[in-house]
Amino acid sequence: MSLLGAIEAGGTKFVVAVANVDDPDTVIARESFPTLDGPTTIKQVTAFFDQYQDIAAIGIAAFGPIDINPQSRTYGYVLDTPKRGWSGYNFLGAMQAWRDIPYYWTTDVNGAGWSEYVSGAAKDVENVVYLTVGTGVGAGIIQHGHLLSGNSHPEAGHIMMRKHPKDKYVGHCPFHGDTCLEGLASGPAIEERWQESAKSLPDDHLAWEIEADYLAQALVTYTTILRPDRIIFGGGVPHRSILLPMVRESFARQLADYLPVDDLEHYIVHVEHGDNAGVLGCFYLAKSLLN
Amino acid sequence: MSLLGAIEAGGTKFVVAVANVDDPDTVIARESFPTLDGPTTIKQVTAFFDQYQDIAAIGIAAFGPIDINPQSRTYGYVLDTPKRGWSGYNFLGAMQAWRDIPYYWTTDVNGAGWSEYVSGAAKDVENVVYLTVGTGVGAGIIQHGHLLSGNSHPEAGHIMMRKHPKDKYVGHCPFHGDTCLEGLASGPAIEERWQESAKSLPDDHLAWEIEADYLAQALVTYTTILRPDRIIFGGGVPHRSILLPMVRESFARQLADYLPVDDLEHYIVHVEHGDNAGVLGCFYLAKSLLN
Repeated sequence: MSLLGAIEAGGTKFVVAVANVDDPDTVIARESFPTLDGPTTIKQVTAFFDQYQDIAAIGIAAFGPIDINPQSRTYGYVLDTPKRGWSGYNFLGAMQAWRDIPYYWTTDVNGAGWSEYVSGAAKDVENVVYLTVGTGVGAGIIQHGHLLSGNSHPEAGHIMMRKHPKDKYVGHCPFHGDTCLEGLASGPAIEERWQESAKSLPDDHLAWEIEADYLAQALVTYTTILRPDRIIFGGGVPHRSILLPMVRESFARQLADYLPVDDLEHYIVHVEHGDNAGVLGCFYLAKSLLN
Repeated sequence: MSLLGAIEAGGTKFVVAVANVDDPDTVIARESFPTLDGPTTIKQVTAFFDQYQDIAAIGIAAFGPIDINPQSRTYGYVLDTPKRGWSGYNFLGAMQAWRDIPYYWTTDVNGAGWSEYVSGAAKDVENVVYLTVGTGVGAGIIQHGHLLSGNSHPEAGHIMMRKHPKDKYVGHCPFHGDTCLEGLASGPAIEERWQESAKSLPDDHLAWEIEADYLAQALVTYTTILRPDRIIFGGGVPHRSILLPMVRESFARQLADYLPVDDLEHYIVHVEHGDNAGVLGCFYLAKSLLN
C-alpha cells in the first residue's frame, strides 16, 4: 500500500510519521526526537523512513527562515538562523539524496495552517490566517485555497506594533526589540516582562490585558491587508482560556467597525487539530503532489 | 476597430477614456468631470461611451469600499461610504444595464497598481505593493501576477501603527484616530497636524521625519507579511522629493536586516505612469477579459 510521509521540523523537536495515501487522517507510525544539528537530525529522519519502501511523497513543514522559491539557487535550504548547525543547510537536498520522490517543502506554520484549512477550524472557508504564538510568533496564510507567498514565505510575526501604554518592557526580538509582534507577545516576551512563568500569571494579571491588546492589534493589521474569513490561533500562549475572549473584545474596539467581519466567535478561533496540526498538514500537502 | 473603455472612478473626479484594443497605451479620447452622486455621475459616464459603438470591454477602478466578491448579493455595489449619493449604489449594475459587455470591476488602487505591474515601475517583477498616499492611503497588492483579495479588497491604509515619539497629533481617521496609517500619514493628517499646507512645509521640517517614519513602518509590515519584490508609491504626498530617500533610510533602520530585500533604491520607488496609472490599468484589465 502506498504511504505518505510527514516531517514536522520544529526548532525544538522533529516529528516524523507515515499514513496511508487513502487515509491521511490516520497516523500509522510516528516518532519524535530533539532537534540537533542538520546532518545528525536528518540521519534520524531517514532512518525512520528507511523502514518503509513504498512512500509516494513526503510533506516537510520546517522551522524558518527557509528558502521556498523554486527559482532560487538555495531552494530547499534553511537560511540564516540562530539555531546551531542549520544555517545554510540543504534540508530538501538531503532528503532528495536519500530518496528521489516528490516533496512538499514549506514552513511549519504553513503546514499547520493547511491542516486547519483542509479538515480543521477553517474547513468551510477559503481565506485563512493561522497564527501561532509560542516560543516565536508566525503565520501561515491561505488566500482562495492557496498558501500565500511573495518572493518567500510570510514572516508575519515581525509586523510593526504600537506599544501598550502600561507596558515598559524592552522587547524580546533580537532584531526589532519592542517594535514587532514577536518581540512583545511571544511566550518568552511574556515571561521576561513579568519575570515569571506565563502559566503562573493569574487570569486577572495585567499581562493578559497587554497580551490581548497586542494580538488584537496584529489581527486588525492582518484583517485590513488580507481580508481573511477566519483567524486561527495555535501555539502555547493561546491555551490560556481567558485570552481569546479578551482578544475578540480588543479586536472589536481597535477595528471600530471599519470593515465587516464574521461574528467574532467564528472569526477568531482556536486550532482544532492541536498537536496533530503539523503532521496532518504534511500528509495533506504530500498528497496534493500526487493528484 | 474594437475599443477598450476605462472608468477611473475617484472620490473627487471621474476620468473616462477609450483606447484601441491593440494599443491600450494610447488614449484616443478622454474626459473628466467632478464626482457627483451615483446616478448623476454614471449618466455622464454613459453619455461619453455612447459616442462609441464598438467597445469590447471596460475596466472600472472605483473608490471604495466596494463589493468585489462575485458570490455576493451586492457584487458591483459601492458599500458604506461618507461620499454622498454612493452608499449602496449598484455601480456595475448601472453599467451593465447601459450595455451588456464584459466589465473588470476593481478598486482605484488595484487599477493603478496593475498598470505599474504591466508596463510601469514593476514590469519586471511578480510581487508588488502599490501604495497611494494622498487624501487617503490605500494599497493595491499583486502576488505572483494576481491582484490579492481575501473575501474583499485590501484596506491596507488602516493597518495599526506605532506613534512617533515626537508626534502629538490626535489623528485623522474617523474610525481609528491616531492608531492607523491613514490617520497618521495621509495628506489631510499632515496638514491638520501642522496647520499648514503640506506644500509649504520646508524639507527640514519635523513633518517629513515623522511622515517617513510612518511610511517606512508600514512598509516593514507589508514586507514581512507579503514579501513583495517591489513597493511603489503613488499619490500626492510622495511628490516631495526628499521623502522617499528618508523612507528608505527609516525602513532599513526599522527592518534591521531581518529579511533580505532588493537594494532599497529598487525596492522602494515612485510610480512611473503618474496620473495615467489609473486609466492605463483599466485598459489592461479590460483587455485581460478578452483573452
